Amino acid sequence: MRIRLYNARILKKDMTITDGEVWTRDDKIEYVGAAKTSDQPFDSEYDIKGNLLMPSFKNCHTHSAMTFLRSYADDLPLQEWLFQKVFPQEAKLKGDRVYKFTKVAILEYLTSGVTAVFDMYFYPDDYVRACTEAGFRSVLCGGVCGDDKAEDLENRFVKFNAVNPLISYKLGLHSEYLSPLPLIKDVAELAKKYKAPVYMHNSETKREVEECIGRYNMTPTEVLYENGIFEYGGGGFHCNFLSDRDFEIFKEKKLWAVTNPSSNLKLSSGIAPIQRMQGEGVNIAIGTDGPASNNCLDMFREMFLVTALQKLATGDASACPAQDVLRMAAIDGARAMGLYDCDCIEEGKQADIIEIDLNQPNMQPLHNIVKNIVYSGSKQNVKMTMCAGKVLYRNGEFFVGDSPEHIYEQANEAVKELLSE
Amino acid sequence: MRIRLYNARILKKDMTITDGEVWTRDDKIEYVGAAKTSDQPFDSEYDIKGNLLMPSFKNCHTHSAMTFLRSYADDLPLQEWLFQKVFPQEAKLKGDRVYKFTKVAILEYLTSGVTAVFDMYFYPDDYVRACTEAGFRSVLCGGVCGDDKAEDLENRFVKFNAVNPLISYKLGLHSEYLSPLPLIKDVAELAKKYKAPVYMHNSETKREVEECIGRYNMTPTEVLYENGIFEYGGGGFHCNFLSDRDFEIFKEKKLWAVTNPSSNLKLSSGIAPIQRMQGEGVNIAIGTDGPASNNCLDMFREMFLVTALQKLATGDASACPAQDVLRMAAIDGARAMGLYDCDCIEEGKQADIIEIDLNQPNMQPLHNIVKNIVYSGSKQNVKMTMCAGKVLYRNGEFFVGDSPEHIYEQANEAVKELLSE
Repeated sequence: MRIRLYNARILKKDMTITDGEVWTRDDKIEYVGAAKTSDQPFDSEYDIKGNLLMPSFKNCHTHSAMTFLRSYADDLPLQEWLFQKVFPQEAKLKGDRVYKFTKVAILEYLTSGVTAVFDMYFYPDDYVRACTEAGFRSVLCGGVCGDDKAEDLENRFVKFNAVNPLISYKLGLHSEYLSPLPLIKDVAELAKKYKAPVYMHNSETKREVEECIGRYNMTPTEVLYENGIFEYGGGGFHCNFLSDRDFEIFKEKKLWAVTNPSSNLKLSSGIAPIQRMQGEGVNIAIGTDGPASNNCLDMFREMFLVTALQKLATGDASACPAQDVLRMAAIDGARAMGLYDCDCIEEGKQADIIEIDLNQPNMQPLHNIVKNIVYSGSKQNVKMTMCAGKVLYRNGEFFVGDSPEHIYEQANEAVKELLSE
Repeated sequence: MRIRLYNARILKKDMTITDGEVWTRDDKIEYVGAAKTSDQPFDSEYDIKGNLLMPSFKNCHTHSAMTFLRSYADDLPLQEWLFQKVFPQEAKLKGDRVYKFTKVAILEYLTSGVTAVFDMYFYPDDYVRACTEAGFRSVLCGGVCGDDKAEDLENRFVKFNAVNPLISYKLGLHSEYLSPLPLIKDVAELAKKYKAPVYMHNSETKREVEECIGRYNMTPTEVLYENGIFEYGGGGFHCNFLSDRDFEIFKEKKLWAVTNPSSNLKLSSGIAPIQRMQGEGVNIAIGTDGPASNNCLDMFREMFLVTALQKLATGDASACPAQDVLRMAAIDGARAMGLYDCDCIEEGKQADIIEIDLNQPNMQPLHNIVKNIVYSGSKQNVKMTMCAGKVLYRNGEFFVGDSPEHIYEQANEAVKELLSE
């Protein structure tokens, strides 16, 4: 399968833009450069008409199947939302429900130009089935907590890293606050055994950090570090409240801070210290968090907020420039979840590419395309989303092996059934 | 001209939703209710397929023609941005340039479901020509300052309130900080003469308020009030820093606070006290501000931020519920700028209506449509924008008497020319 995308602008790894074309062969990028002729025929040729081809967005923290709780319970205090609304409904999930709810999320990711998500949730078999059927890439993140056994995490780690080229699996804890110390130590052993990074929710709220200090006289980051979790790197989701010592640990272990600004606003958690992270060289990626807390899976909203909230929090309108944010969302995000071959448009890389429609009023005039995307971009600008060399979304149409109407119908029926139980 | 919109969900003034249909005759709504047959033929009939018809969005503070500076200068400290980048380029504007740059903004408003904007800028004749040619509604806001004469404001007030049914004009000052006291007093005389409300930028930054207190030992709101500006009401744009006394004045004079959250983040100005305003019964509407500071003209982004920033600022995740925000954006916004016949879908009102596409993944499942729109909505959900009974945008196509390609080309050429002078 060979596809030619010609007459394009192309965003390079250094955030500059050149004119040219991109060829793909199966799941990989075969050629990037000036217009030229091919000896072999293409299966499809798309005239990009001067629009921008760029590396797709990578959503580095989400709980995809939580689409079923989108707009089910908002505008409530955090504790009431979580304990009275979210947890009781989540307890009624089953594998086939996760499958149906994930499919809705995948459609939304595609409209937002996302081709890979770092997902922590239940029923991984059904989640993986939804992704592979759609041709959508995903990295699953373990989320053990409470009475869970590290052994089960290990079994999933081994199983899902061998299941499909589109799927990989990272070691993960839900969080320090839901993980007893023996579990943390057991997961650290797995990290050593597999020389693998470990990820978890970390320092999302001030209260979480204070309670951890109350328990251990250490921050969550310190507790995890001291118990060997970060021996081979990893990262934290949210990271709103990091101490000076936490910063040292993030730098020493080259950890990824995955920021989720919409969710942190909506649940009144706080603003992550992105400008300081940038200044100190901490690795940063971006996620939407799940659709129950956000409520949408829109990387454009997250990108705008990453920079706009830094400008607010620091009082410095020059904080966190657009090109840095776009790099986090498209390039660094791939690296954060170990997708080193999905980070940019270069020969040999995976063909995870999106077309940004510049012929929309919010992209005009064309002073600076990168700034336009970060400050003014929206889902309306995603004209095409290609994952592993397959066009999964183009001009508002989905090519995921199932119709959106059927996916919505199945999801709405499953929600109705679940809520009535 | 009669149009039938059938098989629809309809958002009512009280934020509840019913099934039914809407008929328009010329610029007005002729019928809203259950499906029924008409004796007379329709010029067009649209099957809304269960999507939502709702009152269009009203953008209550903007500088439309500033599209020409979109992404021209971002990520700069505020003073440098304004004095070294914005002002020198604005000085090179001419009427035909404002006309071309406004046309780009109108296209963007339509993609965002906006049918009326409250615009403060230069070259009103050319601005009005761009709006009326496109069939787009606008309320112009006077912006006198410095050496400007109140007499000129009066002339424009009289002229533009009689020019076209789509156009009206409100008395306005740029701001307290750019207006000498004699000019403020002269505008107050006009307010009395015409029994008219007056609007201006107000308390956007902390520094602005502090400097005003330094000059007068009064806040900007107090200075304007004490000089009679608010005798017949009016409002302020931004209103981020209001004192207790300011709150009293806003309530006494029933002033409108127009909030502009994206701009206030991006320029690191602050967060408006929306929750307190709601609690004390201050009138609230929403605006995007101009595309040089925002940078996009997207009411969905503003709506999300109005509530999400209150949740952050107050530490209360239940602050500023979605239905309140949607009412501000669609209904109250019309009233803020005096468009009392454009506020809701009722018989006899102006046919300013949008269709929200619910058959998009970000609107699924359908737990709560109002919350979906505020927390998850985006421009991709605007399927149709009707202004004064005319469909100006539908399924991504514009019907504004000129092609988007031509509008972009004209704008880019004019920008190039302007920057090279």
